[in-house]
Amino acid sequence: MDIDGHDSESSVDVLIIGAGPAGLMAAAWMAHCGVHARIIDKRNAKVFCGQADGLNPRSQEIFESFGFVDRFRKEAYYLNEVWATSSPDENGVIRRGERTPDTPPGLSRFMHATLHQGRIERFFLDNIKKYSKDTIQVERGVMPESLAIEETKVHDQTAYPVTVKLRRLNEEESTPKQHGGAQFADGLFRSNLFGEADEDALLQRSYERAGESETVHAKYVIGCDGARSWTRNVLGFELQGESIDAIWGVMDIVPFTDFPGIRERSMIQSAEYGSLMVIPRENNLVRLYIQLIEVKLDATTGRADKSKITPESIFDAAKKILQPYKIEYDVCDWWTAYQIGQRVGTHFQAHDRVFLAGDAVHTHSPKAGQGMNVSMQDCYNLGWKLALVIKGIAQPSILSTYEAERRRVAQELIAIDHRLSRQISGKPVKDSADPTGINPDDFKKSMIEGHLFFQGLSINYGPSSLIAKPSEADEHGNGGGIAQSTKINAETFAKRQALATGLPVGMRFNSCKVLDQSDGRIWHLQEKLKSDGRFRIVLFAGNILDPAQKQRVEHLCTQLDAPSNFLRRITGTGSIDSIVEILTIHSAKRHSVELLRDFPDILHPFSRQTGWGYHQVYCDDVSVYEGFGDAYVSYGVDKDRGCVVVVRPDQIVAWVGELDDFDDLQSYFQGCLLLSD
Amino acid sequence: MDIDGHDSESSVDVLIIGAGPAGLMAAAWMAHCGVHARIIDKRNAKVFCGQADGLNPRSQEIFESFGFVDRFRKEAYYLNEVWATSSPDENGVIRRGERTPDTPPGLSRFMHATLHQGRIERFFLDNIKKYSKDTIQVERGVMPESLAIEETKVHDQTAYPVTVKLRRLNEEESTPKQHGGAQFADGLFRSNLFGEADEDALLQRSYERAGESETVHAKYVIGCDGARSWTRNVLGFELQGESIDAIWGVMDIVPFTDFPGIRERSMIQSAEYGSLMVIPRENNLVRLYIQLIEVKLDATTGRADKSKITPESIFDAAKKILQPYKIEYDVCDWWTAYQIGQRVGTHFQAHDRVFLAGDAVHTHSPKAGQGMNVSMQDCYNLGWKLALVIKGIAQPSILSTYEAERRRVAQELIAIDHRLSRQISGKPVKDSADPTGINPDDFKKSMIEGHLFFQGLSINYGPSSLIAKPSEADEHGNGGGIAQSTKINAETFAKRQALATGLPVGMRFNSCKVLDQSDGRIWHLQEKLKSDGRFRIVLFAGNILDPAQKQRVEHLCTQLDAPSNFLRRITGTGSIDSIVEILTIHSAKRHSVELLRDFPDILHPFSRQTGWGYHQVYCDDVSVYEGFGDAYVSYGVDKDRGCVVVVRPDQIVAWVGELDDFDDLQSYFQGCLLLSD
Repeated sequence: MDIDGHDSESSVDVLIIGAGPAGLMAAAWMAHCGVHARIIDKRNAKVFCGQADGLNPRSQEIFESFGFVDRFRKEAYYLNEVWATSSPDENGVIRRGERTPDTPPGLSRFMHATLHQGRIERFFLDNIKKYSKDTIQVERGVMPESLAIEETKVHDQTAYPVTVKLRRLNEEESTPKQHGGAQFADGLFRSNLFGEADEDALLQRSYERAGESETVHAKYVIGCDGARSWTRNVLGFELQGESIDAIWGVMDIVPFTDFPGIRERSMIQSAEYGSLMVIPRENNLVRLYIQLIEVKLDATTGRADKSKITPESIFDAAKKILQPYKIEYDVCDWWTAYQIGQRVGTHFQAHDRVFLAGDAVHTHSPKAGQGMNVSMQDCYNLGWKLALVIKGIAQPSILSTYEAERRRVAQELIAIDHRLSRQISGKPVKDSADPTGINPDDFKKSMIEGHLFFQGLSINYGPSSLIAKPSEADEHGNGGGIAQSTKINAETFAKRQALATGLPVGMRFNSCKVLDQSDGRIWHLQEKLKSDGRFRIVLFAGNILDPAQKQRVEHLCTQLDAPSNFLRRITGTGSIDSIVEILTIHSAKRHSVELLRDFPDILHPFSRQTGWGYHQVYCDDVSVYEGFGDAYVSYGVDKDRGCVVVVRPDQIVAWVGELDDFDDLQSYFQGCLLLSD
Repeated sequence: MDIDGHDSESSVDVLIIGAGPAGLMAAAWMAHCGVHARIIDKRNAKVFCGQADGLNPRSQEIFESFGFVDRFRKEAYYLNEVWATSSPDENGVIRRGERTPDTPPGLSRFMHATLHQGRIERFFLDNIKKYSKDTIQVERGVMPESLAIEETKVHDQTAYPVTVKLRRLNEEESTPKQHGGAQFADGLFRSNLFGEADEDALLQRSYERAGESETVHAKYVIGCDGARSWTRNVLGFELQGESIDAIWGVMDIVPFTDFPGIRERSMIQSAEYGSLMVIPRENNLVRLYIQLIEVKLDATTGRADKSKITPESIFDAAKKILQPYKIEYDVCDWWTAYQIGQRVGTHFQAHDRVFLAGDAVHTHSPKAGQGMNVSMQDCYNLGWKLALVIKGIAQPSILSTYEAERRRVAQELIAIDHRLSRQISGKPVKDSADPTGINPDDFKKSMIEGHLFFQGLSINYGPSSLIAKPSEADEHGNGGGIAQSTKINAETFAKRQALATGLPVGMRFNSCKVLDQSDGRIWHLQEKLKSDGRFRIVLFAGNILDPAQKQRVEHLCTQLDAPSNFLRRITGTGSIDSIVEILTIHSAKRHSVELLRDFPDILHPFSRQTGWGYHQVYCDDVSVYEGFGDAYVSYGVDKDRGCVVVVRPDQIVAWVGELDDFDDLQSYFQGCLLLSD
């Protein structure tokens, strides 16, 4: 359907409300999975809300899986070296502190980096356009006016139970108001997201039809419409938690300063004037987060009158904090002030038909640089589940895992941000007898303790139909109430997890380097886990040269290939790897085995158009150019016997077992996918 | 000027004839240096000649310097593992031979790779468009009809001594003829270079004006118009050398075969049926070079009647060579047959006003995968020289180094191709008493011996005004006759070269990893040698913590900064680093020094718009994430005393000396650049 030619009444599989990073992530999944989706935003192309810039390693892994991390890498500024904390000496004068690594080496292929949110959105927009073959483009200047769910239809997979009425806005309506002559009041600003000709044309055509209404019947709706979410409000859900925090200013400037840590991620706590964070960015810009201790808060509401805050007043505060160092600037790219509390949504969905994601269900300060990451990762969790249910591949019951999995992440985020904000906004301790002061070391400690979370690598989803863990293993779980398909007990689970100690079930698949059996090229295994909606069976085939082990591999392949078993029953007449792809990693020497001779056909499926599946079999051997990945050791897998690992479409480890545990492997897939008779 | 709105008479600084890889490389330089240039091609967008696909490490380094190697990396197929040579056993049956690394590790950051020429051209077109701000776009369907040089004006830098008459073709004229019902006869084929909307529109507008003529007055012309170069013919120059070779077929197919080395670069010599080369490519394609021993050659001309060659006959030959292995295919992307000799142009230029590059001055077989590389690298050598002369930065006399430097490379290419072709086309030796047979090991030996050339890393330019070497050091020289500015004798040169043994003068600047002093990010130093037309002074500052050494650095900086010296005299009122950029690498511990405190301002120049030049000072220290580059050791530079290295805009090491050799450093630049009074 022409995205421009909607009738006054139409239907769609997924309607995404809000085209920030969360909404675009959802749209990316739909594009990569070939699902009919629309994405609307009430604002026009040139303005958006907020300006996040910190991208954690996990987000970059996700960009890689969609195919655009190369663009990110080229433009981003990498915070790959140090955290510098500076605090007053005995005379109350700022001294530059010790420098330590920002991210512990070895956790991810990627490192913390900063890049303007507008560029991230640009990468998504181009990627969505390419993979949807131009069928999904953001419709800007379009606003939802009402939303209704027909509850009698929510269990009918052929129905479109959500009705949303949309209205096309004119240019004035879709351009956010600028408060107080400046942008900061609600964080809106002129972005450097530049429009493409076709996007501008689409918007113009929409303006021409301003005032027109459209009734959209949707199977599913995702509300990614920010902290003041219209979708959340219309569902009657709330954010809960503390509502206010200290007030901070933010400026993106090209600074002239003699403070030596200006190109490092730094935190400076002054004795009397508050704290300041330094986040270096692309193009010699530096973002300063500046505590505004002189701004008076209303005694009743605890809120500041932000209309009195100017760039000059923010920068004056920065100068005081930094003394005796000097700082000036000519170029300011953007500035704002914020006062945000830590709050989490009461519900993340209604009837598993309307979902909320991103700021619509969690608000917090930007200090840990997590906002854009957690919001995008919400939809990275949700998108493939919706796509597979809509395509009739997965059972609708998997949708309940979204709230279960992501609400815990939001709660953890809020707890960490709360702790950090209090530490950063406090005054530094004067001496050991000062009970109210904050020890700068505590801040550093919090940062180090929280580092796995900050990388986006602490996620550990609990048991469900998608995660084969015993319900006892609930310390990282979802709070129960989620159906489990494999009735695994703790003892069996422990035995199985011991087969791949480096791949904890519930966490993201860690990446090691392996060699392509057919040509010897070295790859990060994670590069082979593309976000195309497919599950993967990672077969650690062990020592394929050992006859007994080879027989185990062949036996498993016979079971996988049997028409009566799950793999053929989920794919039907489609190609054998269309829903679950098998990736093999063996531990023999690469030159001692041959792909076609030593591996059953199902491990490298054949097609007359593309030939053999050369690039599905890998080995854990020394490369000519980049050393030894030592994958079996890193993954804690036995080099002789190997094991089998199931990876979800979002790169989360879902199941671990022996090559001989085929029945349980089958029940995993029976529990989440739809099998033909 | 609107590239679409040329009058019937116009002028331009550089007119490039031919938009293959060589012509596009020249245009890229003009775009990056801001020179007014035009590039024409008589063919329309959808067809071009030849289909090279091998890209050597040096070409990839150059792509990196222009900013598009990321696109290449994403799409290319890396031949990074093995050379497999297979030959008959005692029964005459093909046996797969031993596998060895293709490229010795450590020579370059990049490895041999294959990618369709059409994609390379696409990357160039997009890059040229971006950097020229849309002012340089290939004008297709435009053909030169006459060329005249006004010899009286060739020494006048304000003059436009070359007059070229152009004619716009119609669609039929600009579409190459397809011979014999197939494409192979002259290597023309429908390419998968897809047009962009604006490029198609430009071509359509040109068609509408078909038949119109235009007289262009150019300062310089570059003929990159292929083996049958119109430019070369109109200048009356010739190619010299052998004119014919054995006849080979080429096919790009998706093969079904049990030959195990099909995803590795392989060479197979059969006992009776000739030889076959396997070059794996992107998208599971494989290129086969197939010797056609059954095709009869005309006894007089030595030429084959190519009209009788079909894909079927070529593939039959391949099947015979490969037996007992089987091979079939459904998908053939492209095929051709060729019979090419090794020939070199007599002249590469006329009056240093009209230049020839690429196939216009060297033809050879595609077996070593060098064609596209050497052609592009011709213009990589030429482009910046022209740009700097046109911009009034460099002396016109530097232009004579183009022929001197590149003709030797062409000769070396031809010699290697000649040897390889004879070895590959010969029959394998039967036993030690077989005098005419070719030992398969000889082929492998030739490949290994030639490897530096194949990587594009053996280039060693001789003494000239751009290369400060003694004329005695002419074993890799240009054959003399080139002016030298620094009258360096062999003894002094040896002493200076000993200051940086890993950076031989005349060769490309090898890359080591270093840390950014300001933020600790690790970089390959070569990433900092962008192709923007600037020379670089790489200052190995040594141990900056040693007071005596610091004084040497400061003294050098004072000299560099003096208004009466070359650096200020070449830049005039422009910024100090607009023509020569200084990059500093010190050897002290990163945390023990501070950028602003320990390094003179000239090493990190200040601007109010962009702040301090944070990213011009590096250190040779251990990184947090990627180990230790150990640059001083790799470059053979003393960690205490350091040295100074001049790098040309094309990344060639031009001069090496002590920090105290300022006078000679100055005479280097006086010898090639134009200094104000």
